[in-house]
Amino acid sequence: MMRMEKPPAPLIVPDPDDPRLTQRVSGIDQTGVTVEIKVPVERPLTLYLNAQEIVTMMTIGDYPEYLALGYLLNQNMLKYDDVVTEVEYDDDLQVVVVRTEHHTNFEAKLKKRTQTSGCAQGTAFGDLLEAVESVALPKAELRTSWLYRMTHAINTMPSLYLEAGAIHGCVLCKESEPVCYTEDVGRHNAVDKIAGWIYRHGVDPADKILYTTGRLTSEMVIKTVRMGIPILISRSGFTAWGVDLALSGAERIIYDQNLAYIEEESARSKRKGEGRDD
Amino acid sequence: MMRMEKPPAPLIVPDPDDPRLTQRVSGIDQTGVTVEIKVPVERPLTLYLNAQEIVTMMTIGDYPEYLALGYLLNQNMLKYDDVVTEVEYDDDLQVVVVRTEHHTNFEAKLKKRTQTSGCAQGTAFGDLLEAVESVALPKAELRTSWLYRMTHAINTMPSLYLEAGAIHGCVLCKESEPVCYTEDVGRHNAVDKIAGWIYRHGVDPADKILYTTGRLTSEMVIKTVRMGIPILISRSGFTAWGVDLALSGAERIIYDQNLAYIEEESARSKRKGEGRDD
Repeated sequence: MMRMEKPPAPLIVPDPDDPRLTQRVSGIDQTGVTVEIKVPVERPLTLYLNAQEIVTMMTIGDYPEYLALGYLLNQNMLKYDDVVTEVEYDDDLQVVVVRTEHHTNFEAKLKKRTQTSGCAQGTAFGDLLEAVESVALPKAELRTSWLYRMTHAINTMPSLYLEAGAIHGCVLCKESEPVCYTEDVGRHNAVDKIAGWIYRHGVDPADKILYTTGRLTSEMVIKTVRMGIPILISRSGFTAWGVDLALSGAERIIYDQNLAYIEEESARSKRKGEGRDD
Repeated sequence: MMRMEKPPAPLIVPDPDDPRLTQRVSGIDQTGVTVEIKVPVERPLTLYLNAQEIVTMMTIGDYPEYLALGYLLNQNMLKYDDVVTEVEYDDDLQVVVVRTEHHTNFEAKLKKRTQTSGCAQGTAFGDLLEAVESVALPKAELRTSWLYRMTHAINTMPSLYLEAGAIHGCVLCKESEPVCYTEDVGRHNAVDKIAGWIYRHGVDPADKILYTTGRLTSEMVIKTVRMGIPILISRSGFTAWGVDLALSGAERIIYDQNLAYIEEESARSKRKGEGRDD
């Protein structure tokens, strides 16, 4: 990877007006009246690494290149020092092909597939756990004022979630500012797209914060560490192992937010509480 | 399967007091004060079909036998007419082995693994879709009064969700009455446990209703059809393909609930809205 020569990374935000991403369906409400609502689409996307078929994913279908790269990186099928020569997407065939300079020996990895909790795309879990244990993440701090500004920005930004629900979001932020906001029917697709965007554009993960609408299971923590992002935030719950792996690091939090001021504000910008489950 | 000779199926309800299923973790709230909360555990469970290692799942760890059987059935690795001779669970090794009278030819299926949207354990999607298209589900009706009674029962019953959050639930009901209520860190584990319970105890799926806290993606609809359950209910959202596959069937709904009466009641028994995401 020649990161220094890359052009600046584009800002990624949801595009709720993209007609390919949602569909209108008719239903009946509790009083028997017909209602029409927008829901997200799911479509299959088949991923190849060189000549090898890897997987067919169900996705809303935006950013297939980021999803393909991020999936392979987060599955440890592609290493960060592998040289990717091309990412080819065929809209008609719903196929995306990632080509590398040297063939990767991924077949051995495929032999023992590990499936994981929650929304998963099958992770070589033992491998990943090992890789994660040897990682030293960059020093980082988290200001509570960033947290409030960040969630306000995310909750008020137009998104497929606000438009159609039933979708997960991941947002990569620098301090409180979203720089890459991805959504998908699976929370792992959303985070994989972020990994692909970071890799594709040579973005420095060390000064970033990852926000997810999904729960923090062990796999989500592992992916974040693997991406080199020092801080992970969820608006949702977490499992015991997720917390264990993350080591939390409360000493990195700086309490600079005036809480009295924020109470009212946060009540106003609160997200829809229901309907976000997975 | 000799269904007629089986003893009656046990009623399955969550056991939030089981100390193996939750763990206390310390954290810090928005004011900097240390708080201690209960969160669900995740532990690996490795599944074998005869001598073949299939997968390692992350699960809370209750009902490994149901999870193993249901996973294999819902993945189409085990057919409903296969004869299971033994399900062996080793708590120390965290291994569960399903043995069949005749070896199944699952390796061909493993070759082309399809991953799916949301929480997935890898489904041979094309295969399943084909299987589902030829299924004729039993006739069924759904009374709106059942819906209200059922959700009231589910929302007020002690559960890991109410105790520790960050977990999904699936509830198999007969009319409005829960007969098998399973929970797990992934919504697919919860539904797979139901499939295993149905199979293990020879339960008739034709007069049942499946309730899930998770979103209705295509995969969730396909599993329900495969289990032979005619009605699927979600308290969460759905995707366009999910609706498409389910064909909805509004003509089966009977509006027998007095809505004026229920408004107040449902407000009182409302579930915690936040923290349930995946």
